[in-house]
Amino acid sequence: MSNFIRRRELDFLLYEFAEIQTLFEHDRYAHMDRENVDAILTTAVRIAEDKFLSHAEKLDNNEPTWDGETVHIIPEVKEALDAFCEAGLMMGPIDFDHGGMQLPHTLSQAYMGVFHGTNASTAAYPLLTIAASNLIIAHGSDAQKSTWVEPMLDGRFLGTMCLSEPQAGSSLADITTKAEPDGDVYRLSGSKMWISGGEHELSDNIVHLVLAKLPDAPAGVKGISLFIVPRYLQDDDGRFTKPNDVTLAGLNHKMGYRGTVNCVLNFGDVDGAVGYLVGEPHQGLKYMFHMMNEARIGVGLCAAALGHAGFLYSLNYATERKQGRAATNRDPASEPVAIIEHTDVKRMLLAQKAYTEGALSLALYAARILDEIEVTDDEQVKKDKLNFLDFLTPIVKAWSSEYCVTANRHAIQILGGYGYTREYPVERLYRTNRLNPIHEGTNGIQSLDLLGRKVVMNDGQAVRTLMGEIQATCDAAPEDLKAFAEQLASTSQAWAATTMTVCGAAMQGKIDVFLANSWEYLEATGHLVIAWLWLKQAMACDGKHSAYYEGKRAACRYFFKHELPKVGPKLELLSSMDDTCLTVEPTQF
Amino acid sequence: MSNFIRRRELDFLLYEFAEIQTLFEHDRYAHMDRENVDAILTTAVRIAEDKFLSHAEKLDNNEPTWDGETVHIIPEVKEALDAFCEAGLMMGPIDFDHGGMQLPHTLSQAYMGVFHGTNASTAAYPLLTIAASNLIIAHGSDAQKSTWVEPMLDGRFLGTMCLSEPQAGSSLADITTKAEPDGDVYRLSGSKMWISGGEHELSDNIVHLVLAKLPDAPAGVKGISLFIVPRYLQDDDGRFTKPNDVTLAGLNHKMGYRGTVNCVLNFGDVDGAVGYLVGEPHQGLKYMFHMMNEARIGVGLCAAALGHAGFLYSLNYATERKQGRAATNRDPASEPVAIIEHTDVKRMLLAQKAYTEGALSLALYAARILDEIEVTDDEQVKKDKLNFLDFLTPIVKAWSSEYCVTANRHAIQILGGYGYTREYPVERLYRTNRLNPIHEGTNGIQSLDLLGRKVVMNDGQAVRTLMGEIQATCDAAPEDLKAFAEQLASTSQAWAATTMTVCGAAMQGKIDVFLANSWEYLEATGHLVIAWLWLKQAMACDGKHSAYYEGKRAACRYFFKHELPKVGPKLELLSSMDDTCLTVEPTQF
Repeated sequence: MSNFIRRRELDFLLYEFAEIQTLFEHDRYAHMDRENVDAILTTAVRIAEDKFLSHAEKLDNNEPTWDGETVHIIPEVKEALDAFCEAGLMMGPIDFDHGGMQLPHTLSQAYMGVFHGTNASTAAYPLLTIAASNLIIAHGSDAQKSTWVEPMLDGRFLGTMCLSEPQAGSSLADITTKAEPDGDVYRLSGSKMWISGGEHELSDNIVHLVLAKLPDAPAGVKGISLFIVPRYLQDDDGRFTKPNDVTLAGLNHKMGYRGTVNCVLNFGDVDGAVGYLVGEPHQGLKYMFHMMNEARIGVGLCAAALGHAGFLYSLNYATERKQGRAATNRDPASEPVAIIEHTDVKRMLLAQKAYTEGALSLALYAARILDEIEVTDDEQVKKDKLNFLDFLTPIVKAWSSEYCVTANRHAIQILGGYGYTREYPVERLYRTNRLNPIHEGTNGIQSLDLLGRKVVMNDGQAVRTLMGEIQATCDAAPEDLKAFAEQLASTSQAWAATTMTVCGAAMQGKIDVFLANSWEYLEATGHLVIAWLWLKQAMACDGKHSAYYEGKRAACRYFFKHELPKVGPKLELLSSMDDTCLTVEPTQF
Repeated sequence: MSNFIRRRELDFLLYEFAEIQTLFEHDRYAHMDRENVDAILTTAVRIAEDKFLSHAEKLDNNEPTWDGETVHIIPEVKEALDAFCEAGLMMGPIDFDHGGMQLPHTLSQAYMGVFHGTNASTAAYPLLTIAASNLIIAHGSDAQKSTWVEPMLDGRFLGTMCLSEPQAGSSLADITTKAEPDGDVYRLSGSKMWISGGEHELSDNIVHLVLAKLPDAPAGVKGISLFIVPRYLQDDDGRFTKPNDVTLAGLNHKMGYRGTVNCVLNFGDVDGAVGYLVGEPHQGLKYMFHMMNEARIGVGLCAAALGHAGFLYSLNYATERKQGRAATNRDPASEPVAIIEHTDVKRMLLAQKAYTEGALSLALYAARILDEIEVTDDEQVKKDKLNFLDFLTPIVKAWSSEYCVTANRHAIQILGGYGYTREYPVERLYRTNRLNPIHEGTNGIQSLDLLGRKVVMNDGQAVRTLMGEIQATCDAAPEDLKAFAEQLASTSQAWAATTMTVCGAAMQGKIDVFLANSWEYLEATGHLVIAWLWLKQAMACDGKHSAYYEGKRAACRYFFKHELPKVGPKLELLSSMDDTCLTVEPTQF
């Protein structure tokens, strides 16, 4: 196996942490057993190494180009996507009813992580396509489903999401792309920015999901509608060969993530691009959130996987590279030791392990909630779990991308000068991962979403759920983990109290004061959640003994000793309603 | 002026913070006045913008190449270096006695920062050459000085430092490059790695300062000698045209900092490269530390300058880019505001300002200590100040590079998707700055140097100096800064107590326990020092009122509210003598 993937970790997270096997008892997943889970993982790892990792460096060195007519991408990308689709992985998380394999989301997220970690650029195409399919399945008409979903699931068509415009990135309220009714269809015109997978020859067609405004649309986000706008329309024979009025205006040249073509698209430069309305008019943003939420969890997972790949790579390097001697050894004639023997290198490895395996566990925990929603018939349970998932989503996205970029920073540091060169992959992982705090809603936006929306929705239900879950975990902690359980319980109580204090400003209508330190709030909440999941990971190791389990315990200890205490000052800052950032004037910088 | 430089900031740091004018009272700097300081800064800014910034992007896109015979670098680099030398800037910090301009180090560091921030890759050539000149001036023979220093100061020769080898990076004890006596000279053979400026056609000659071992050398760092090894030797006419036996083995291809050619050099593949011993045999590392210490402060300054350039660029962007509305404005039909109006953007600007102007102030404070050493005749004062400078050096290098990379991360985030593209400079600044935590001794090595050497040397004299300086600053704080002064005093006392606790392990001979959390110690100490300097900056604004001064106060407040409290948990971790990182076994990761 390569230095980018550790199968043992997948097995631990799936079976021992997320306990995927307990899902098989339900009708929905009765077709699953450990044997086919293992077979799917084996296939995924094989394809990821043979077809994705194998061209990751080449793709980074040869980003997509446009000659004015055609976008050129190295052929290995298409070969990788073909292998991915042939193995049925595109349809893994899709229900039987829609032609899929109806795998548990916990499993499909686990294998998607393998692809992200080995080659996030190429994995972005299926990530987007699966999410686009899910959106159409959830909100499209029967005709739309039958036209678009099947070719997407077998990879003949790939999907995109077209939200941003040059003047409207974080502020979707300000999009200006128009959709004029034209018989049964609509004619779209406008520019869309940052479109990943927006133009290429990797598939027979590209299914753009586009936000636009109808002529009678109210201002702001309440006037946004959603359209399917294919690159090619059906000709008289029903084949998708007729160009729609969607043109490439230019490619963006990114610091990393280079293999995912990213572009500006012009819709309707000639006579309006044909679009098909999804669902009701003016409800488009709500539908798009279906895709965005899935993509946000995908981004968090991708960040975790890129971080973990850097961890594994730097771990292997640290084991092989000899340099220096123990701090207690004064004999320069003695043999140098592997750098993994040095405490400060171990620190950077433990930090990477704690961040990235914490983030992976969070992504799989979120996936497991989705599965639990699928298998229950109890509407209240469904609602509560969805509520909790909504709460966790900005944390999955923003905490993971923030800390797993830091993990990649440590990986470079362990390799030293070598890590800074393009001959080693860790700088590529770092450059690539740096996109994750930006796209699918910047991390700042995520923090506003968490505090301004998710915390307060349903009268703070999600806060109570998290507190209850933490308490249940702490109560169940075995003797040797009681000290951590107490630390976690006490931090969670301080967090809940701070949440109350901060929300007090919202109740007084001081929205700007309420949100003034939203990023600190997200960081504190993220650390709390990850500490809780690390305690769960440590509990999953209870009674088990091997170097692997000791490592899990050490990483848990690292998180509780080195990371969780960072929450205290953040909560104090929040509780003090510090207004430093709010009150500084733009002219004062 | 470009978006990379703010002259007002230079003026503040030099005159109001470092009070450079008080140096002019001393004989050594009696030739200086405000007028010539201003003229030098004006010249530096002009050359930095016209000749350095102007090719920074092009250089990043066109890194040096080697065709097997010659290293090719875009011609703008040579033009920039010529302009730099013609303005006399290479000889700025050199004494009159050695043909220099004898400028205060405070001033020369200030203008070097301008060049680092606009184009660190090109600025690296003079940085290395000035440091190499200083080493030869300090430790070379008269003949060596007269041969090498003059052509280096006028830019005809450029300098390098050759320490690392493929098998010996952080561990110089293990270098294997040999030097055999051959009459008056030595013949060197061995490979040197990561040599910045190691091969190029930018100068008539390259003066390599090379660490190597004599045949009778003791093992380890006590057996290292230092040699001047030029690329070209003198021919019979005294001209440097005769190739020495130094050959380029290959170029390294870096993530950033691309314009500084970096290579593997082979010494003595044919008949031994001619080298001239500097000073006494086996004392080479001590001499080299002269250059390394200067380079470490240079690295910290460079990190600060790159961070500050990103701050200024993202500030300008945030002022111009319109997006979204105030949290309190629910009207989607209202005009969008500049993103600098958003609190979370202000947070990222304040963080950048606090980190980078804090780091700049630290670099200039260190430079001012050097000046104070130069102008005093009191040997005890000299010794104490040098001791304090030695203590601060790893902080200048490591804290600045750590936090100013984070500053660049914020700059990208403010620009969002645009910041992630190569069309905007912030990603280049980020990639370039990422080298600074690695070279000239990794940040981990700096933390071992700080705690294992600098804290304990001279019975903890530096700790007492810092405590005394902080106390003096706190005592002098005006009423409106008393709360920060108290917070600083109390943190410094906790820091001193923790230092005592941690050093207790050293006194018991438990060196590994003593050093187990050295990185946390460096971070805590760095935050304490930067908070102290921020208080000094705020005190320099006392009684002054304008948007600029209010901004300084806001950044100080940010540091005290958002950053200094992070020290508490680190000190608790250190005081607890946590051994998580020490005890985890290599097999457990």
